[in-house]
Amino acid sequence: MPKLTIIGERIHCISPVIRAAMAARDPEPILQRAREQLSAGADYLDVNIGPAENDGEALMYWVVRLLQDNLDNVPLALDTANDRAIEAGLKAYNREKGRPILNSADAGGRFHRVKLAAEYEAICIALCAGDGIPADNDERMAHCQTLLEAWLELGMEAEDIWFDPLFLVVKGMQEKQHEMLDAIGMITEMGLNSTGGLSNCSNGMPKAVRPIMDSAMMAMAMARGLTSAIVNPCDQRLMQTVKSCDVIRNNTLYADSYLEI
Amino acid sequence: MPKLTIIGERIHCISPVIRAAMAARDPEPILQRAREQLSAGADYLDVNIGPAENDGEALMYWVVRLLQDNLDNVPLALDTANDRAIEAGLKAYNREKGRPILNSADAGGRFHRVKLAAEYEAICIALCAGDGIPADNDERMAHCQTLLEAWLELGMEAEDIWFDPLFLVVKGMQEKQHEMLDAIGMITEMGLNSTGGLSNCSNGMPKAVRPIMDSAMMAMAMARGLTSAIVNPCDQRLMQTVKSCDVIRNNTLYADSYLEI
Repeated sequence: MPKLTIIGERIHCISPVIRAAMAARDPEPILQRAREQLSAGADYLDVNIGPAENDGEALMYWVVRLLQDNLDNVPLALDTANDRAIEAGLKAYNREKGRPILNSADAGGRFHRVKLAAEYEAICIALCAGDGIPADNDERMAHCQTLLEAWLELGMEAEDIWFDPLFLVVKGMQEKQHEMLDAIGMITEMGLNSTGGLSNCSNGMPKAVRPIMDSAMMAMAMARGLTSAIVNPCDQRLMQTVKSCDVIRNNTLYADSYLEI
Repeated sequence: MPKLTIIGERIHCISPVIRAAMAARDPEPILQRAREQLSAGADYLDVNIGPAENDGEALMYWVVRLLQDNLDNVPLALDTANDRAIEAGLKAYNREKGRPILNSADAGGRFHRVKLAAEYEAICIALCAGDGIPADNDERMAHCQTLLEAWLELGMEAEDIWFDPLFLVVKGMQEKQHEMLDAIGMITEMGLNSTGGLSNCSNGMPKAVRPIMDSAMMAMAMARGLTSAIVNPCDQRLMQTVKSCDVIRNNTLYADSYLEI
């Protein structure tokens, strides 16, 4: 198995710094966050421009070119509710260092995005969900099957659709965590790739607790076969955990210096 | 599921301080380590007196009474290669706060200890191993079955034999870790309890790395259903991980202060 694929989550319009930089087309704050994440070990950078209803196409084009022109065609995950903005990003994207990721399709209102991802030969993140949180794993896996079949019918490879089990907030949905981990196990047993917004699990927890909870969740998810995650690679504890689990899974060779690599 | 049962590993004759205290029958160093582990969250204390070929019976008797007399009949795991010393400990043991644990039987040269544990109605830790490290999970699970059958034939309850999958050192046996985790998963699916000397996984690693590796291994093992572990409860990172995984497994109710409890 390859190492866990880390998708850095920090270029996100929910951050006031990033939102202001996007609005003003100010390169430096965005490039700085990008560099920080890459040097911390991100394989991909997620670019979340939010709903971006007004100038989504122009904004996505600008961010994609900004990042790829300045950072050696860094691979990106394009993340917005605006389909036309996704498409503008896919068109602007240079594939030299890896295919683009479309984040995300689902089996509900975003089902058509499976086709969009296929059209541009992107990797597709597919939520095991329709509209709303799945009631149980029967529902999760039914959505997974629907999405996979649509993807395969479009002539795409199973390894290029990454299933997101939907990480749920622990505070409030504690009794649902075990089932979500089981879903990762089922996706793994089907030989499929998985990813997701892992840090959602610690939403609403005290700031000092979040890296501890995220780190525990990461190791538990990796024990069930998780192949990628959308996370903050600058969270040192989290990255130490990822590297250790990659050693335990035999995805990277152990060396005494493995945490520094 | 109940919370993970923590068996504190630090009263061990491999420690020069403890060995000297045992030899001199000096109570304070032993009591101090016991108190430290209990206040850090240990449920049981392991008492490892080594081979103790000369005065094992007297020594085990002395340590058991020392700990239980001074620490409110703290529950203990009795750990030595000397059968007569185990028996002396079992006889001296007060069950008010929990049954004794016999650490350990196996399906090889220590198979007779299953009977010894049953005779004293102790909890039995049973290594999924004959003499030496099991070659694969077929062998692990065959030993598990042999031990379980012997236990049940003695009229004991399945929940009182805790199976140790044999945590292996990562440095040197990296490719065997995944299978060991699968073994925990199989033991869990059989509805059985599991435990083991988890920190063996980080043997030979730099001191700063060990808590990080142990913590990752703990979360991965808990994701597969581990119900107990023999560890150092004074390792803060490890205990934070255990508490977080217990929350994720819904074994304890989440509170913002859960790490301090």
